[in-house]
Amino acid sequence: MEMNKKKIGIALLGCGTVGSSVAKMLTQQKDILLCRHKVELDLTYIVDIDFTFAEKLNIDKSLFCTDFEKVLEDTSINIVIELIGGLTIAKQFIEKALKAGKNVVTANKALLAHHGSELLTIAREHGVCIAFEASCAGGIPILRALMDGLIANRIDAMYGIVNGTSNYILTAMTMDSLPYATALKEAQDDGLAEADPTLDVEGIDSGHKLTILASFAFGKNIDFEKIPIEGIHTLDICDIEYGKELGYVIKLLAIARKQEKGINVYVRPAFISMEHPLSWVSGPFNAVSVYGHATGHTMYYGRGAGGDPTASAVISDLYQVATGITKTLFDSLQLWPDQTEKAHQLSREDFTSRYYIRLTVEDKPGVLAQIADKFGKNGISISSVLQQEIHPESDIREGVPVIITTHPAREGSVIAALKAVDDLDESKTESICIAILDEND
Amino acid sequence: MEMNKKKIGIALLGCGTVGSSVAKMLTQQKDILLCRHKVELDLTYIVDIDFTFAEKLNIDKSLFCTDFEKVLEDTSINIVIELIGGLTIAKQFIEKALKAGKNVVTANKALLAHHGSELLTIAREHGVCIAFEASCAGGIPILRALMDGLIANRIDAMYGIVNGTSNYILTAMTMDSLPYATALKEAQDDGLAEADPTLDVEGIDSGHKLTILASFAFGKNIDFEKIPIEGIHTLDICDIEYGKELGYVIKLLAIARKQEKGINVYVRPAFISMEHPLSWVSGPFNAVSVYGHATGHTMYYGRGAGGDPTASAVISDLYQVATGITKTLFDSLQLWPDQTEKAHQLSREDFTSRYYIRLTVEDKPGVLAQIADKFGKNGISISSVLQQEIHPESDIREGVPVIITTHPAREGSVIAALKAVDDLDESKTESICIAILDEND
Repeated sequence: MEMNKKKIGIALLGCGTVGSSVAKMLTQQKDILLCRHKVELDLTYIVDIDFTFAEKLNIDKSLFCTDFEKVLEDTSINIVIELIGGLTIAKQFIEKALKAGKNVVTANKALLAHHGSELLTIAREHGVCIAFEASCAGGIPILRALMDGLIANRIDAMYGIVNGTSNYILTAMTMDSLPYATALKEAQDDGLAEADPTLDVEGIDSGHKLTILASFAFGKNIDFEKIPIEGIHTLDICDIEYGKELGYVIKLLAIARKQEKGINVYVRPAFISMEHPLSWVSGPFNAVSVYGHATGHTMYYGRGAGGDPTASAVISDLYQVATGITKTLFDSLQLWPDQTEKAHQLSREDFTSRYYIRLTVEDKPGVLAQIADKFGKNGISISSVLQQEIHPESDIREGVPVIITTHPAREGSVIAALKAVDDLDESKTESICIAILDEND
Repeated sequence: MEMNKKKIGIALLGCGTVGSSVAKMLTQQKDILLCRHKVELDLTYIVDIDFTFAEKLNIDKSLFCTDFEKVLEDTSINIVIELIGGLTIAKQFIEKALKAGKNVVTANKALLAHHGSELLTIAREHGVCIAFEASCAGGIPILRALMDGLIANRIDAMYGIVNGTSNYILTAMTMDSLPYATALKEAQDDGLAEADPTLDVEGIDSGHKLTILASFAFGKNIDFEKIPIEGIHTLDICDIEYGKELGYVIKLLAIARKQEKGINVYVRPAFISMEHPLSWVSGPFNAVSVYGHATGHTMYYGRGAGGDPTASAVISDLYQVATGITKTLFDSLQLWPDQTEKAHQLSREDFTSRYYIRLTVEDKPGVLAQIADKFGKNGISISSVLQQEIHPESDIREGVPVIITTHPAREGSVIAALKAVDDLDESKTESICIAILDEND
């Protein structure tokens, strides 16, 4: 420890997987940090009621503390790291810290998606900052890219694979032709899906991250409640297989695109071309593609979860806050959701893309003509039609599958056409509709 | 233009492809910047002797200036952008600017690789900064990632595809089975290679960028002169084809790896597995893979050259300098090459990896045994041996090609073994040796 280091007092709130990784890096691996940065991050308290994770890593017990008030009163504490997570007590703790004049570093995407502006406003009122690189895509410095490296760009579109659990399941479904339930079970056995996987597989976690990312991409306040969210839990393996034959890979995408009339912010499984770099992102990895008007396509890839990758983001935030860089960005960027106007978020109906559609219809003459008629009446131009064999793993037991791909169309029109098609006597199951995203969308 | 904007006076030095893009973004596209940032970047001078590029873009002629002294004397100028490039007059201009108390933003990788420390020292002496995100990998904010997002990591390895021209040529050779000369010609016709492509195809440009990147990855002063550099101009199409059969793709890699005894900093064509994300980076795109001890593998992808992508990096640097963030990093990071100790750079002989080796030998009994003997005597363990058909596009006209892959070995031993093999009467041409990099190397 050199003499010229500036010491910054840190308290860590919540010591689970990520928290204990942060504690390990700030104590046992302190040498790595001290050779890279002149500021010394001094972990003084670890506040929790359960220290199981920390004890497993042999974290110094003298740091353990069960009384958050002690932290609030300690003037040597400059930054509070909130790693409790979720929408329950974390908010109250963060508010208390901010009001006590402490800066906050958090990975709490749910809280930021729901109450980000409110918390930012409180921070500003008390002359402190909140930093949250760790809330989106774990170890990948994607918020940094949006706030800094790409700042000269009008962002036209952003597509993110930001939920490792879903990507792991989709990769298993795609590579090993496993049905959803089997792939989920495998992910759970491998510790890559929770016992209750709802937040991940139903796209809610991706929606939280998208709310944060899209706010900074577009410099608009994004309303999480207005994001249409579809998960991967209803996907049929047969659509993944048919898609593959057409040259597409399915990914759960957090989508934010500028369209003429507003912004499309959307979480949904979508087909992307096997030529697109996002299609190669497999297993638990995350990646975010950002299309800037000057840079064109850039992509950021890495582990989106896990103790150490997320701790890496937390610690980079500690340095940014400690050196005043976060404060500078707080004051000079016009992208913060507490200070930007509400985004005009388009509805599902206004989403425009190409579509993959699967119908299951009676195998008799004239059916295709009737279907084509319904599409035509709704102004949808068909790009290809393929009658398929029934997939052995599929749930379809009656009728034959017909796969249609469309030219770019408004989703509202597609929904109307499919409603009309589904109403035909010859339709055996409800139609399936999956967006196809092209590179330049 | 809002009232509360803080104006920062900017002079642009050198108005070629990148310079004119910067000028366009700072003037004609100023609205994009003004809605994203509270600081106003005010382009006051464009200094050059030839304004052809600027005129093509209809840049406001009142900015044109041929007298740099005028810029130096103008106290309203806070930042000078140097986009002259190269090792001739650029250095002198930068020194003058620094000594006049101007901050400098530059994309000049050659200059930084050769004289980075010297220029940083001058900047420090005069209380100003140099920012150079644009010097490495164009629009990809990779230096930012190393200085900020990944700061908590001990970097164990970094592999970069940082020369778009070479990657374009290698992609054409790989995808279309073109010999080097044809692929180069194609790149030249497409404007993706210079009439004299030496700097690009011989790996020198990659070496410049590697010098800068490795300095910040490892926090050591890297000596460009000590980097072994091999280009792509001597590659035979047959090795690319044989490699493909083994599951590898060839890339010109800027490599920086920690080994036990020091750092391997190396530019060379190398085989990487088709499973590795870098293998998918095709055409003029760049990407840098960084392995941090906490993050594991992260990768940054985008366009590594061109006016607009590079201008995006220049402008992000302008904001970083204008807001004082660069100054903060200048003062607090311990990674700057003017303040770090010299890296212990290992020689080519100390490089350790697996290898692909092609021998061309007489097709008669006992030859393989002799070869195996030479490998064994040098402590090299052979992983696979394959006698190949002669490739139709190859220059080989005598003997048969034998492809050997090795287990991890010290390159010095491989060189010794190959010297012994080449000395055999049965050897028909000099052996070819290409490193194979595995993901976890």
